[in-house]
Amino acid sequence: MRFRIAPPSPDLVASAAMKKLRTAVIGTGFIGRVHVENVRRLGIEVSAIGGRRPEAVRAVADALGIEKAETDFLKIVEDPSIDAVHICTPNVVHFNIAKAALDAGKHVLCEKPLATSIQEARTLVETARARNRRNCTCHNLRYYPMVQHMRRMREDGDLGEILVVQGTYSQDWLLYDTDWNWRIDPRENGPSRALADIGSHWCDMAEHITGQRITALCADLQTFHKTRKRPKGPIETFAGKTLSPEDYVPFAIDTEDFASVVFHMGDRTRGAFTASQVSAGRKNQLSIEIYGSKASVAWNQERPDELWIGNRNINNQVIVKDPSLMKERARSYADLPGGHSEGYADTFKQVFRRFYRSIEEPAAEPEYPQFSDGLRQLNILEIELASHQRRGWMEVPL
Amino acid sequence: MRFRIAPPSPDLVASAAMKKLRTAVIGTGFIGRVHVENVRRLGIEVSAIGGRRPEAVRAVADALGIEKAETDFLKIVEDPSIDAVHICTPNVVHFNIAKAALDAGKHVLCEKPLATSIQEARTLVETARARNRRNCTCHNLRYYPMVQHMRRMREDGDLGEILVVQGTYSQDWLLYDTDWNWRIDPRENGPSRALADIGSHWCDMAEHITGQRITALCADLQTFHKTRKRPKGPIETFAGKTLSPEDYVPFAIDTEDFASVVFHMGDRTRGAFTASQVSAGRKNQLSIEIYGSKASVAWNQERPDELWIGNRNINNQVIVKDPSLMKERARSYADLPGGHSEGYADTFKQVFRRFYRSIEEPAAEPEYPQFSDGLRQLNILEIELASHQRRGWMEVPL
Amino acid sequence: MRFRIAPPSPDLVASAAMKKLRTAVIGTGFIGRVHVENVRRLGIEVSAIGGRRPEAVRAVADALGIEKAETDFLKIVEDPSIDAVHICTPNVVHFNIAKAALDAGKHVLCEKPLATSIQEARTLVETARARNRRNCTCHNLRYYPMVQHMRRMREDGDLGEILVVQGTYSQDWLLYDTDWNWRIDPRENGPSRALADIGSHWCDMAEHITGQRITALCADLQTFHKTRKRPKGPIETFAGKTLSPEDYVPFAIDTEDFASVVFHMGDRTRGAFTASQVSAGRKNQLSIEIYGSKASVAWNQERPDELWIGNRNINNQVIVKDPSLMKERARSYADLPGGHSEGYADTFKQVFRRFYRSIEEPAAEPEYPQFSDGLRQLNILEIELASHQRRGWMEVPL
Amino acid sequence: MRFRIAPPSPDLVASAAMKKLRTAVIGTGFIGRVHVENVRRLGIEVSAIGGRRPEAVRAVADALGIEKAETDFLKIVEDPSIDAVHICTPNVVHFNIAKAALDAGKHVLCEKPLATSIQEARTLVETARARNRRNCTCHNLRYYPMVQHMRRMREDGDLGEILVVQGTYSQDWLLYDTDWNWRIDPRENGPSRALADIGSHWCDMAEHITGQRITALCADLQTFHKTRKRPKGPIETFAGKTLSPEDYVPFAIDTEDFASVVFHMGDRTRGAFTASQVSAGRKNQLSIEIYGSKASVAWNQERPDELWIGNRNINNQVIVKDPSLMKERARSYADLPGGHSEGYADTFKQVFRRFYRSIEEPAAEPEYPQFSDGLRQLNILEIELASHQRRGWMEVPL
Repeated sequence: MRFRIAPPSPDLVASAAMKKLRTAVIGTGFIGRVHVENVRRLGIEVSAIGGRRPEAVRAVADALGIEKAETDFLKIVEDPSIDAVHICTPNVVHFNIAKAALDAGKHVLCEKPLATSIQEARTLVETARARNRRNCTCHNLRYYPMVQHMRRMREDGDLGEILVVQGTYSQDWLLYDTDWNWRIDPRENGPSRALADIGSHWCDMAEHITGQRITALCADLQTFHKTRKRPKGPIETFAGKTLSPEDYVPFAIDTEDFASVVFHMGDRTRGAFTASQVSAGRKNQLSIEIYGSKASVAWNQERPDELWIGNRNINNQVIVKDPSLMKERARSYADLPGGHSEGYADTFKQVFRRFYRSIEEPAAEPEYPQFSDGLRQLNILEIELASHQRRGWMEVPL
Repeated sequence: MRFRIAPPSPDLVASAAMKKLRTAVIGTGFIGRVHVENVRRLGIEVSAIGGRRPEAVRAVADALGIEKAETDFLKIVEDPSIDAVHICTPNVVHFNIAKAALDAGKHVLCEKPLATSIQEARTLVETARARNRRNCTCHNLRYYPMVQHMRRMREDGDLGEILVVQGTYSQDWLLYDTDWNWRIDPRENGPSRALADIGSHWCDMAEHITGQRITALCADLQTFHKTRKRPKGPIETFAGKTLSPEDYVPFAIDTEDFASVVFHMGDRTRGAFTASQVSAGRKNQLSIEIYGSKASVAWNQERPDELWIGNRNINNQVIVKDPSLMKERARSYADLPGGHSEGYADTFKQVFRRFYRSIEEPAAEPEYPQFSDGLRQLNILEIELASHQRRGWMEVPL
Repeated sequence: MRFRIAPPSPDLVASAAMKKLRTAVIGTGFIGRVHVENVRRLGIEVSAIGGRRPEAVRAVADALGIEKAETDFLKIVEDPSIDAVHICTPNVVHFNIAKAALDAGKHVLCEKPLATSIQEARTLVETARARNRRNCTCHNLRYYPMVQHMRRMREDGDLGEILVVQGTYSQDWLLYDTDWNWRIDPRENGPSRALADIGSHWCDMAEHITGQRITALCADLQTFHKTRKRPKGPIETFAGKTLSPEDYVPFAIDTEDFASVVFHMGDRTRGAFTASQVSAGRKNQLSIEIYGSKASVAWNQERPDELWIGNRNINNQVIVKDPSLMKERARSYADLPGGHSEGYADTFKQVFRRFYRSIEEPAAEPEYPQFSDGLRQLNILEIELASHQRRGWMEVPL
Repeated sequence: MRFRIAPPSPDLVASAAMKKLRTAVIGTGFIGRVHVENVRRLGIEVSAIGGRRPEAVRAVADALGIEKAETDFLKIVEDPSIDAVHICTPNVVHFNIAKAALDAGKHVLCEKPLATSIQEARTLVETARARNRRNCTCHNLRYYPMVQHMRRMREDGDLGEILVVQGTYSQDWLLYDTDWNWRIDPRENGPSRALADIGSHWCDMAEHITGQRITALCADLQTFHKTRKRPKGPIETFAGKTLSPEDYVPFAIDTEDFASVVFHMGDRTRGAFTASQVSAGRKNQLSIEIYGSKASVAWNQERPDELWIGNRNINNQVIVKDPSLMKERARSYADLPGGHSEGYADTFKQVFRRFYRSIEEPAAEPEYPQFSDGLRQLNILEIELASHQRRGWMEVPL
């Protein structure tokens, strides 16, 4: 029996040096505000915020207590007092801002997808390398404590050979043809919707946990609403309103509401997943199941602090997140004691802490997703779209 | 407020006429014994049992209190005192017994798969029609109360248009290369394993609930164990024993441990499922999720009395089986009041009750799966195997 | 690695000798019909059924295919062709029938509560002993496979010292004042309702699993509906009808809708439970949690095939019932392989199989609840009612 | 159909004015660090941290990037640049610091229990009133989004009359006699352990959600470990170590490991709860079930984003937290869209945001627990301890 001075204390430590870093967030939407709040948990100052419309960005800056509000992102990326930039804009402008920020010597943390084409993403990977700047594609979902525990179980061989990987990323927020968002417009979002927005999270997680690459796939896409109702005028003013015919225009849709994909991984692993924005009742269900020759794991983002471990000859297990029961190398991803839930916001804190630490320690290996990981997802996405077009299996370049 | 004389009483009623029917079960394995026990719940006499080895079948007959024990199935199917025959043997002999029983004028209830080839199955469908005999392929899993509730919800339009159907049938009983069973030997089992044994249950359920047909599919099969260890000598004597090299011979495997399938259904529905006998921790997990334009349902055989109903604009729902909350046309499938669980054995009772009722009432429409449903599953299976061979999409004949 | 000839075969075996036993069921309600059906699974003939109203009992007998229908229970208990009698009537007549049946030399299986007074129950215990007849109080809920697994875990010391036992038996079928059933009338039911009907199941299970006795308790009862609406005329005719004032008479209620109890068990164990018939949404939730110095278990009748095992220094576990993972001495209570659910009806089969086996083997120890167990529950019940009256703690005689 | 510009944006807004507030946290343990991190999310500066040992507090200050580190709490409470003080120390010093801070004109947010005696707590309530300072007892668990949703459902009458309230707060971190923490020593913790530390959270939540007061109770306490092993020397150095006899001294325990309580609430409501620090496998399980005459709710802190709603005549419901489905007056407690989990840390943010807003808006009603709520819990606790001593029911003053 070991002595326990319980409950275990969290690793809330940032550092005095990090405290002096200054950062900026570009994008005033939901995800931009999540970035502001969670970077502040580390004691790092958000000194500027960027957005498209002058009044809107000033209002957000005031509400959040941020000094500078800018509509010209160049003013932010060229501000010498700023060390790093978070890019939280619609996808189509990721590239321009990230490129400019790197060229201006900033470290860059970009929301996913990194870009809307492989060529753009390659340029960003190369620029970051050439400029020697820290770069992160915000695949934050890897950093739920239980996801890291799965990853470390696999690394330690607890699962044996990985046989099967399956799951889904299903949401319902675009179920009706009256649901509207910038992601529906390919001019803001790029050529893929369900796969680019959430399917990429699933594939990133599958490759991250298993340590294997998807090698071949056959994808099938479906757009259930061929036409959606686009509100006329400023979109925010319509939120929650009952729709009249004079309020909208029909908008032809060619990005997918749903996709199903079967795939090969590594040498022998097989799998399947679906991505859906039209699955009634699923609010944010990323579920992934990994079946190995020794044991299995299953996890669902809607209950992030739980992990199911499947066994053949002994009882199955269910973990309620508890650092004292986690793999040692996963433990720093859990800041709270057993049964004290850590949620979506906390995953950002984990990414940001490691991102800013790596700025302070230039020799350290980055422990967060790189721009190259963002490029990887764009490579998979391209093959998924092509497989659907050609209606058949295709190889995925490694 | 309505008056309730609670708890609601079950429909346990068989009938006096049914009581006089006499039946026989061919097959002494696990599933044969399940048939014996559950046909008896209706008050119907099992007057004979058939099996391959004389001592074994006599022993089982004695243990179960059955009068006649036969090794020659013809003695059973030609016995004029017997009204119906249950076929619970290995797959490869289904055809011969079923054909002989129909030819002898018996009503026939056959375990699935109905046969090991489409041609055999077609012959059985035609013979049953020609002989005007009741015929049932035992897709019993349709008859969990919550499955019937899903079906009736769909029929009533509660789900709207079906958009997506997905799920899995995953087990772990063949995870290790030391797991052995007659199903591993294609000479007893036929050319497909995971898809024929459990994938067919999934497809039958998907088509039964949605009322739609799978129209096209792309399947991918994998045999993780290319060689398994076959015990030398009588198999039962090895159950639970530790294996020595002298106890077994290597046995080359070409039937699949796992399959993943993407498919089209009806006009616009899309879906995916996996079938696995090597998924550690999943004992008998048939899970199916059906997403409609109005609402969704999700069900899992490991918790059969529960049903999840997903919604976008109102709360999701979870039913613990309760006849008073079920669709009226599903209610007769639940014999027990709310919260009194009904399990695997009870699904057989539901099939058998309807099968024997239909014998008594020759004009009545059968309310259970026909031989034609067994044929349907063999059609899908053939396309699945061909799709894997050709590595691409194929149309499924309706 | 051990060889597995999977899936494990069930112990469906009754026996040829049992087949020759003949039995009778007295009571035509829901539970009587459950008895008929489940005794038949063993191949035992139900040769008579008893009930109060001549047409009703004849109709049920016909529907179930039972030869004799009797309104005078003496005709059944004195029928020399009958070996055993199942008593499934309202509580107040349990005693008279059981006494007469024992006196006539029958083996008796009686629904719980065994009687409506301790004195009656004592007489039955003594009569059974004097007549040397097999006797069973039908505490069937003990015989879910997972309940037996918990019991065997405790016996093997897997839980360590039992520290805490807690839970509830909650239903909602008497939530409204328009809910009516014979149990509401103390002339049919006796002086306690929630505690007698379902609280007694909870206490029986707690004592059965832990092997300890409740030694002291403090109970608090509440009757939320002081008056209920009793339908005029034959009750069945009102089922599901909308109530008009002329259809009912007010009926004053003094039996409890709800009770909460704190208790001591054994030397140091502490606990609490509630019993409720007015808990909206709980259909038949018997949940019990047992916390030991080494490990814990938690089980819920609404998901009977699952068991949660709680640990401090290793992962918690969740079992989906699987005979191959069960304690060896619990395994015979599971007839089906892993993940094939066993439900409420199956618990009766387990009791009946053991009851009838013990008739055949007069020297064998009974492996089912005795009349003395029924008496034990009446002793606890008496103290619960007295504790509530006196508003304080009371000792429970052992 | 309504237009939805999805996903709904969170209310992450603090305000520019709040940004200028400066605060201090006294206590360097786990909970102190949680306070630092979460107050920073609002953009508020933590300018000082207090602790007992000079090196330790300086180290924590550096690690967290906080300017001032103090061992004399008076230096903090008398610092004119500081607006508010968070008290996160062991319980016995809450009173002295809170009193001094109020006297120095600071707003005070104090961890629970507010004090270790009713007299102290009364003094604090009166001082805060006299000094007209904002005061908060940190019953943060009220502020999970689903808890607020339950509260608003009750306020809106969705549950009808509350009939039954039951549940538990169960943990396992003190299961073994080698588990040690300052809470075990009554000189730091006060005279009650399980009830004061976690039972008080349960009672606060029960009264908060139902809007009713506990009026009478009967409590039963148990100390399973009469002696625990106290490490010699500085405690932190022993964390996770294997214990040798020379490392510890026996320490006699008289505070409770476990308590069970039955109670009356309001006029007719009945209930029961347990509080346990020795329940293996329960990491932080606060579960509460509230049964009303119309509907029920059940919630469990280990799955905080889920809510079960129980019904009799319609399906039960299960919510995965989704602001668009929440009661309007509960919605501001959910900052993230549907299915994006909010955890333990987020509850602190909700309390702190409202606390600091109320400092800026002196006329506003406080929307967080007051010192008077802390006093209320001490009143209940006193009666619980007395009821156990007297072994009987006692009235609780309102």
